Amino acid sequence: MKLIRYGQPGQEKPGVILHDQRYDASAFGEDYNEAFFANDGLGRLAQFLQENEGRLSPIADTERLGPPVARPSKILCIGLNYADHARETGATPPPEPVLFMKSTTAYVGPNDDLVIPKNSVKTDWEVELAVVIGKKASYVEEADAHEYIAGYALHNDVSEREFQLERSGTWDKGKGCDTFAPVGPFLATTDEIGDVDNLRLWLTVNGQMMQDGTTANLIFKIPFLISYLSQFMTLLPGDIISTGTPAGVGLGMQPPVYLKPGDVVELGIDGLGVSRQTVKAYGQN
Amino acid sequence: MKLIRYGQPGQEKPGVILHDQRYDASAFGEDYNEAFFANDGLGRLAQFLQENEGRLSPIADTERLGPPVARPSKILCIGLNYADHARETGATPPPEPVLFMKSTTAYVGPNDDLVIPKNSVKTDWEVELAVVIGKKASYVEEADAHEYIAGYALHNDVSEREFQLERSGTWDKGKGCDTFAPVGPFLATTDEIGDVDNLRLWLTVNGQMMQDGTTANLIFKIPFLISYLSQFMTLLPGDIISTGTPAGVGLGMQPPVYLKPGDVVELGIDGLGVSRQTVKAYGQN
Repeated sequence: MKLIRYGQPGQEKPGVILHDQRYDASAFGEDYNEAFFANDGLGRLAQFLQENEGRLSPIADTERLGPPVARPSKILCIGLNYADHARETGATPPPEPVLFMKSTTAYVGPNDDLVIPKNSVKTDWEVELAVVIGKKASYVEEADAHEYIAGYALHNDVSEREFQLERSGTWDKGKGCDTFAPVGPFLATTDEIGDVDNLRLWLTVNGQMMQDGTTANLIFKIPFLISYLSQFMTLLPGDIISTGTPAGVGLGMQPPVYLKPGDVVELGIDGLGVSRQTVKAYGQN
Repeated sequence: MKLIRYGQPGQEKPGVILHDQRYDASAFGEDYNEAFFANDGLGRLAQFLQENEGRLSPIADTERLGPPVARPSKILCIGLNYADHARETGATPPPEPVLFMKSTTAYVGPNDDLVIPKNSVKTDWEVELAVVIGKKASYVEEADAHEYIAGYALHNDVSEREFQLERSGTWDKGKGCDTFAPVGPFLATTDEIGDVDNLRLWLTVNGQMMQDGTTANLIFKIPFLISYLSQFMTLLPGDIISTGTPAGVGLGMQPPVYLKPGDVVELGIDGLGVSRQTVKAYGQN
């Protein structure tokens, strides 16, 4: 299944994509949130679709998409998880996964504007494969990790490099600015994705290819990441783990290149669709 | 006012403390969550109490307390915000506030067990003054910051030092383990606290005084912190900002001292009550 949420921010309704057409699934009666995933929402939604497919109303492609999962309890991100990206930032690939957190107030729809914060001069892009957790996970074995995955989605892990690296403390300051976590267009359940370790992921700025990688190059694979993170904290249904970005970010350019108002960022992953953000200055309409 | 939440984890009911006695406030009909604070819940609760004080049922002191605010969107923490603590950890006081985030799955009641994670050998304590945000805050001026405060609470910013400092990446890995954020016993509204910049805060382990400081020594004061953080992300009603810990943590001892099963941690801040956690090994009843 491909799950979407559509409508105005904070008032999104659930929907699905069937045969490349968006449909309203409000009649299912639940948002795609922690309780939905915890109570076999995916199984019940599949049953609902089987019984109601012919009765669903199509949604216009002009409708705004929200993120495909309701605001999660947390967005965990893995840093430096592609060797080529670690190299371009001057970092050594780490001996174990690097964790940082993204504020959930950064969480927005896939095609919402990307707002450069006030006083920012180094806003950067990062195409990433995000994993959505399907059930409560604590001290999970790597071999069992697949049971805890609800699905996958496209994520732009937008990053302000000065805030992240030059303003004291951890990376969190430059990762959680408002609009810095566009997710979607949809959540693809695991059965929709063939080999998650062999997906092309790419990102363009104003049509120019900046990132063009493959999840085959992930240093730490998804089952390991779920098991690893679950040693440090409980993962809740609906939580998001973003798995890192390949080479080609603005910070890695010689000289570095950062986003400016008017830029258009497009990104995609095989099987997970494409998102597009227009860059705005803070306060710009 | 002093707000409490009581009952079993995940099923807490709202309450208040009046004249040192706990009372049920279920009849008010709302949990103390984001929507409560966003919709002048404090003003409406004050009105409710005025009209219903005589009709409230007392709660036994044996009832479990939950954290006094429902799970927030985020727990932001300030590192190294007392010069004496920065010194004991070998760090230089930072030129601007150090931010890290605590997973909200760490968030528990003030007297819940403190569970040492599997494979942990360096679980440590940190008494802290926590600020609860009362309304949505983005790019707030320092002079206006007081308008965004719902109140204050006691917080033990429990920290696994190996996970935090020796396991690659940011501090988040050692800060968000389950049970690592006991908050409460109550949320005190701002009018309950005289001078927030002159509160004694202390922590004992098995009755021995480990931390004994004063908020007078905060390097970055609360209005500055709210203004500062709101430059990097929107703060939502109910969000928690923990303002840092004074000297006396286990990491700073010669040699370092860490918590072990059976230890009892007690902590308190003037006007914000006392909390008490019994240390357990993971899986221990």
